[in-house]
Amino acid sequence: EKLTHFDAAGQAHMVDVGGKAETHRVAVAAGTIRMKPETFAMVMAGTAKKGDVLGVARIAAIQAAKKTSELIPLCHPVPLTSVAIEFVPDAAASAIECRATVECTARTGVEMEALTAVQVGLLTIYDMAKAVDRGMTMGDIRLVEKRGGKSGTYTAP
Amino acid sequence: EKLTHFDAAGQAHMVDVGGKAETHRVAVAAGTIRMKPETFAMVMAGTAKKGDVLGVARIAAIQAAKKTSELIPLCHPVPLTSVAIEFVPDAAASAIECRATVECTARTGVEMEALTAVQVGLLTIYDMAKAVDRGMTMGDIRLVEKRGGKSGTYTAP
Amino acid sequence: EKLTHFDAAGQAHMVDVGGKAETHRVAVAAGTIRMKPETFAMVMAGTAKKGDVLGVARIAAIQAAKKTSELIPLCHPVPLTSVAIEFVPDAAASAIECRATVECTARTGVEMEALTAVQVGLLTIYDMAKAVDRGMTMGDIRLVEKRGGKSGTYTAP
Amino acid sequence: EKLTHFDAAGQAHMVDVGGKAETHRVAVAAGTIRMKPETFAMVMAGTAKKGDVLGVARIAAIQAAKKTSELIPLCHPVPLTSVAIEFVPDAAASAIECRATVECTARTGVEMEALTAVQVGLLTIYDMAKAVDRGMTMGDIRLVEKRGGKSGTYTAP
Amino acid sequence: EKLTHFDAAGQAHMVDVGGKAETHRVAVAAGTIRMKPETFAMVMAGTAKKGDVLGVARIAAIQAAKKTSELIPLCHPVPLTSVAIEFVPDAAASAIECRATVECTARTGVEMEALTAVQVGLLTIYDMAKAVDRGMTMGDIRLVEKRGGKSGTYTAP
Amino acid sequence: EKLTHFDAAGQAHMVDVGGKAETHRVAVAAGTIRMKPETFAMVMAGTAKKGDVLGVARIAAIQAAKKTSELIPLCHPVPLTSVAIEFVPDAAASAIECRATVECTARTGVEMEALTAVQVGLLTIYDMAKAVDRGMTMGDIRLVEKRGGKSGTYTAP
Repeated sequence: EKLTHFDAAGQAHMVDVGGKAETHRVAVAAGTIRMKPETFAMVMAGTAKKGDVLGVARIAAIQAAKKTSELIPLCHPVPLTSVAIEFVPDAAASAIECRATVECTARTGVEMEALTAVQVGLLTIYDMAKAVDRGMTMGDIRLVEKRGGKSGTYTAP
Repeated sequence: EKLTHFDAAGQAHMVDVGGKAETHRVAVAAGTIRMKPETFAMVMAGTAKKGDVLGVARIAAIQAAKKTSELIPLCHPVPLTSVAIEFVPDAAASAIECRATVECTARTGVEMEALTAVQVGLLTIYDMAKAVDRGMTMGDIRLVEKRGGKSGTYTAP
Repeated sequence: EKLTHFDAAGQAHMVDVGGKAETHRVAVAAGTIRMKPETFAMVMAGTAKKGDVLGVARIAAIQAAKKTSELIPLCHPVPLTSVAIEFVPDAAASAIECRATVECTARTGVEMEALTAVQVGLLTIYDMAKAVDRGMTMGDIRLVEKRGGKSGTYTAP
Repeated sequence: EKLTHFDAAGQAHMVDVGGKAETHRVAVAAGTIRMKPETFAMVMAGTAKKGDVLGVARIAAIQAAKKTSELIPLCHPVPLTSVAIEFVPDAAASAIECRATVECTARTGVEMEALTAVQVGLLTIYDMAKAVDRGMTMGDIRLVEKRGGKSGTYTAP
Repeated sequence: EKLTHFDAAGQAHMVDVGGKAETHRVAVAAGTIRMKPETFAMVMAGTAKKGDVLGVARIAAIQAAKKTSELIPLCHPVPLTSVAIEFVPDAAASAIECRATVECTARTGVEMEALTAVQVGLLTIYDMAKAVDRGMTMGDIRLVEKRGGKSGTYTAP
Repeated sequence: EKLTHFDAAGQAHMVDVGGKAETHRVAVAAGTIRMKPETFAMVMAGTAKKGDVLGVARIAAIQAAKKTSELIPLCHPVPLTSVAIEFVPDAAASAIECRATVECTARTGVEMEALTAVQVGLLTIYDMAKAVDRGMTMGDIRLVEKRGGKSGTYTAP
């Protein structure tokens, strides 16, 4: 096993995927932002009625998925065919999970696109609530599942 | 207290900072990526000798700080005066902390720039090591400190 | 009177604004999208309850204001201090007006930023409703008002 | 009929086009900018000889077509195969029509790319002539025709 | 003397310019593309009459100046106040020089912006003429002059 | 022979490649930056041990390849499958050659992507060493080889 993003001389390169088949690929990533109960109440109230924090964060996450190859230096540009973002509130923990599902038909997978969408979705929630709660933390950001491609299916333990 | 990114009618807007003074502002953010011990060994070995994962991640983090207002919908564009990225390896936990310090002289702070740099720094490590370890997780992403501006100094508890 | 975006030899250039003072500037632009009554009903219903077309269009418009100098070749990059987008529905005409107010403290104005926000706001509505109504038209796109700068105040007749 | 950009729960998503066939698609959009007769004369004179307003606007329009999926939140990135921009002056009305024809071989159409090209083409004319005529208005912006894809051919009435 | 883009530990960073004064700065860069005499004739003919290669290259160069901080990892974003591009044909050598003059009032200079404009101006000429002459070469790309800032005036020997 | 980027009326357009086959294409470009011997020594020392100038320039070059269609107005967006950057130091000449190899499977070639990567790779070296040597010059920038596509193989003389 080795880090494929480096050539034999140890130099970073964009890995050659030209020989791979264009196949259907799916990746699901998730992560959570934790906040004070009163911040959570404010975000959820806004979402239900007005001041739609999660609606804005959803758009930011979708757009970030499309920007992944600009942000991650060695990522290939991939024409995405589907991006869906789900927010799952957890009132007991005053936390909100962001879950991104990204699909494409391409020579390489979309794990980074799903993770980038999650990161930017969480960051946007932070941005919109930071005036009332600077201590929010983001965590548990991980690949949940990926399907398609030579390495096949991965499911987080 | 309320969410300042919405107007009285609950509509998202880019908050008016025109009346604020241009002052020196600093923000420090941090976050951690956890991996298998053998992945950690591989990343650290590469960094020391060749296959410089952290060198690539540092550049990605710096560039991401400059892209923040493109990623976070309601962020103001801010001309950054300084961006520094530090990676702190923790061999016992086989984890690497990314810490970003961003500065500007502007009408609004750079908390989001520091957090965005951290997220993209961690994502880039994930990207470069994912072929050997898809189960890496990112967490503890938070604002560590901010100085300057009307709301003064904040230090994470 | 002449077209200032060309030099004496008729070559396009980015006009030198280095000698201008940094002053507070405001621009308001507006434009309208007309659609079938049933499309209008669908958009307005969605906005009230779910499927928030105007919420998405508002975010797109704000982000477009920040991208103006990338889109319009001879525009100066301007650090915006405020962007607000208002949608005014006209049920009788089954039309929606998008109105953008942009502010900055800079050496040049933000008329183009306001107009770009309006255009992209309208385009986003078109995108989201085009599956049910390809015949929507966009028009009356104009500068409504601008204040600040050497040329002073302009109000559309 | 419903707005396809929202899922069953009313949440915005990038529609899944993974199941669609890659076919040849064409879209034609158009729009018009109206100005004072003396502005029209100045723009047309410049175009013929020097100070080529329409030459600059053409380039801006072509580049904007390529940026569509960055501007319109739920648009898919599409690898365009052809973009052509035509300007049709109407001396009697002192107006200039911008007409964009965009093509691709993809799973989704390029209506938004054609409309975005028109909008930015018109905006660029506005930018270059605004120092002499702030009262220019843009209108009649519409899809003229689209071919290809499951929904077949559309021709504006 | 040392490379200022690295800290004491040898890590790349965006140099802190927060302590520098905002002053007027100018940079002039230049470079040349050499081609076959028949290509040169074709480019110059087109420019005079139709098929305006240099007009397109000028717009590309101006826009590239604005994109510099996205392209060069450790460059600061700088709000440019002026960008002018001049093309100087040399029929005897069948070469065209691109010369860029960029100005700002900022805490750091615009040498990289001027050089980036030149590079992209030359690349655009290459792109437009490559179908008839793939052997064109670009060279003599250099900083011609810079004024302003702590290090004062530089003039190429 | 004619300049294909213009239509019959002499107007710039993005050439229609819709009728071309998707084939494997490769382009190799190269260019050189010349500097003072002491600058060369500093860059090479840094690369070996710390202050990795060439490591940063490599990342910038790879990312620039992905941005080509944003920079060169009439370039088609192409999903790259491979990007590799090599730096070849020439101690006798105190010069460093940057060589980029770019591949894709697409309807059009990647010559511009390879040349853009070289230009930005060289510019990044300039940026990082300019504080000690403003007189560096970049030259010999050319297409070395291209394979694939209707026009077949080209090798620089």
